[in-house]
Amino acid sequence: MSATFVIAQGGGPTAVINQTLVGAVLEIRKRYPDARVLGSRHGVRGIRDDNYVDLTEIPEEQLRLIGKTPGAALGSTRDKPDAAYCEVVLKGLQKASADAFIYIGGNDTAGTQQILSDAAGGKIAFVHAPKTIDNDLVENDHTPGFISAAEFVAGAFLSVDLDFRALPGIYVGIVMGRHAGFLTAAAAAWQQDEDSGPHLIYVPERAFSVDRFIDDIKATMDRHGRCIVAVSEGVSTEDGKALVESLVPADRLERDAHGNVKLSGSDLNAALEHALAEGLPGKRARVDALGYMPRGYIGAISPVDSAEAFDAGAFAIGVAADGGGSVAMNDIGWRWVLKNVPLSEVAGKTRHMPKNFMMKDENKLASDGKDYLRRLVPPKYQIGKPFV
Amino acid sequence: MSATFVIAQGGGPTAVINQTLVGAVLEIRKRYPDARVLGSRHGVRGIRDDNYVDLTEIPEEQLRLIGKTPGAALGSTRDKPDAAYCEVVLKGLQKASADAFIYIGGNDTAGTQQILSDAAGGKIAFVHAPKTIDNDLVENDHTPGFISAAEFVAGAFLSVDLDFRALPGIYVGIVMGRHAGFLTAAAAAWQQDEDSGPHLIYVPERAFSVDRFIDDIKATMDRHGRCIVAVSEGVSTEDGKALVESLVPADRLERDAHGNVKLSGSDLNAALEHALAEGLPGKRARVDALGYMPRGYIGAISPVDSAEAFDAGAFAIGVAADGGGSVAMNDIGWRWVLKNVPLSEVAGKTRHMPKNFMMKDENKLASDGKDYLRRLVPPKYQIGKPFV
Repeated sequence: MSATFVIAQGGGPTAVINQTLVGAVLEIRKRYPDARVLGSRHGVRGIRDDNYVDLTEIPEEQLRLIGKTPGAALGSTRDKPDAAYCEVVLKGLQKASADAFIYIGGNDTAGTQQILSDAAGGKIAFVHAPKTIDNDLVENDHTPGFISAAEFVAGAFLSVDLDFRALPGIYVGIVMGRHAGFLTAAAAAWQQDEDSGPHLIYVPERAFSVDRFIDDIKATMDRHGRCIVAVSEGVSTEDGKALVESLVPADRLERDAHGNVKLSGSDLNAALEHALAEGLPGKRARVDALGYMPRGYIGAISPVDSAEAFDAGAFAIGVAADGGGSVAMNDIGWRWVLKNVPLSEVAGKTRHMPKNFMMKDENKLASDGKDYLRRLVPPKYQIGKPFV
Repeated sequence: MSATFVIAQGGGPTAVINQTLVGAVLEIRKRYPDARVLGSRHGVRGIRDDNYVDLTEIPEEQLRLIGKTPGAALGSTRDKPDAAYCEVVLKGLQKASADAFIYIGGNDTAGTQQILSDAAGGKIAFVHAPKTIDNDLVENDHTPGFISAAEFVAGAFLSVDLDFRALPGIYVGIVMGRHAGFLTAAAAAWQQDEDSGPHLIYVPERAFSVDRFIDDIKATMDRHGRCIVAVSEGVSTEDGKALVESLVPADRLERDAHGNVKLSGSDLNAALEHALAEGLPGKRARVDALGYMPRGYIGAISPVDSAEAFDAGAFAIGVAADGGGSVAMNDIGWRWVLKNVPLSEVAGKTRHMPKNFMMKDENKLASDGKDYLRRLVPPKYQIGKPFV
């Protein structure tokens, strides 16, 4: 009997997660022309609910077009299955006669694969293929999805800085990222010179103080006449609480099913606006969240990111042949190198931005951080220096 | 003695307002090789304060690069001069021996030019060159800056719709626009089919009702399982009050120098989030403002918009030779045609989106609206249909 592959997508969609799907499907066709490929809708939910799309006969042309489309074409899920849920999923995989399950996602997704792998006892190959705009997977130099997201963020802050040169004031842009600051730091990837924004960067890796924030902005306004700030939605105060938790009354805080404070509402915007109005009264100030744009804006899909995501999907099929594991993009030389690392190395772990990426005493990117980001997101636009 | 041109930029920066500046400067060089060109910094403020950059000798290559750069390279201003302010500006222009003053901006800018023109009594040619992402200048088919902004908005909503197919819920995107809904309507320019978002559009031209908003979203959720909504920041309730004014307590409302309610804070986000939490409890919902991205995101500058903006600047010099007026993009056939219309026809007037652009009984774009937007913002990306 021919082999059966089940494939699914988990967590937040990205600009290139569909490339990984397509890379995997086309690699299966190349290696195992008779194999059946089932796409599980909405991550492990589709396996639980027997809800598949049969990808076996979808024409390659159609798949290639899906690859170029942002979002998660199979649907996604935020479910983090516990042991009982995993048991149901395992039964579902057995019912589908799956020989391998490829799950594309972040560290939670790798965690699901590890639980499943431990429970299955070697009969099915469990593969985690990497995806996250947070860039927070250990064992990876960077992750598919990050470069496109970073390119959007870099372009957004370059553009806002130009806007605020013309009409000076304070701009605070909130960037996705609960625990890792890479994407927020990418705001400075295309910084033109010392006078250009973003002038300040606040990442989850460093304790946030509202007083320091106001002082930093005051100093920047004095020096540059405007102030462009990038803040991770996940910044936390010294006591380890999310900033939004410190600033917003407890009865107004929203939490998700896992008890995590919801970072995506406008509470943080309002709290920062309030802090600016108190600390810097009378100054033009705007707080905006970049929202979903970085992770899927169709106009900022990086060809390099696309190619890497596709290759990670293709590589996942080799990892399946090896019995399972996590696909990692590692050992960068002139080019990334894919390798198979044990699921346990990646599952549930968060890679933080290295300390040396930020200046020691200032909330600015250090040269190590700039070098890393400019390698991944090299300048794309040449701009003219404004007359103001 | 050779002629002196003064040129300035007013109002919100755009992705292509610098093309208009460069088009004007290069046309002056072509027609009047000996002319002096002074760029006034921060709109009429620079004339008032004698703060100019001499553009006469700036190399063409440097200017061309400025043209490709978003923002307003001369700086801008929100000042709406009254008669007394205009008198000071007029004296400044006389002091600079100006023969013509080209002011690039929207209907307020045209209004300033009219006051100045009336006061000057024919000795200086006053020209208004059009610029606005709001697309709300009368006598114009569309305005420089709109197409790029519309392209960003179209791409943003296409992308968010794909994101929400994967992880269903309600998305409300707030788009700039105080009085005219063109830019918000552009959210639907790249709508793929009837199932695709944005499913609902709310523009300032139509009275907004929170009850209707909730009912519309409920119906959309029942039908499509997700709901993508575009709302103009300037939507008003039946009584003519800005929505934010109806939803936010009076003591928390911010107003600008002209008494206009500040639309750009997070109050509207929070109020809409609250309305959704009350009206559709337990549903995943997110309210985001696209903020400044539409007007200056460097990755969505339309070549057509750039060319039109450049041509409008060049045409302004012919209008100056004719004694002044407002440059209008009109009489579209196979191509736009520029013409000179009296300042009084444009000054201070708002062009609203035609009624037939929206469906009569639904908050959706009608075919007339779609046709208009697709002419200006034709599809740019081919995408694959997701499996969910």
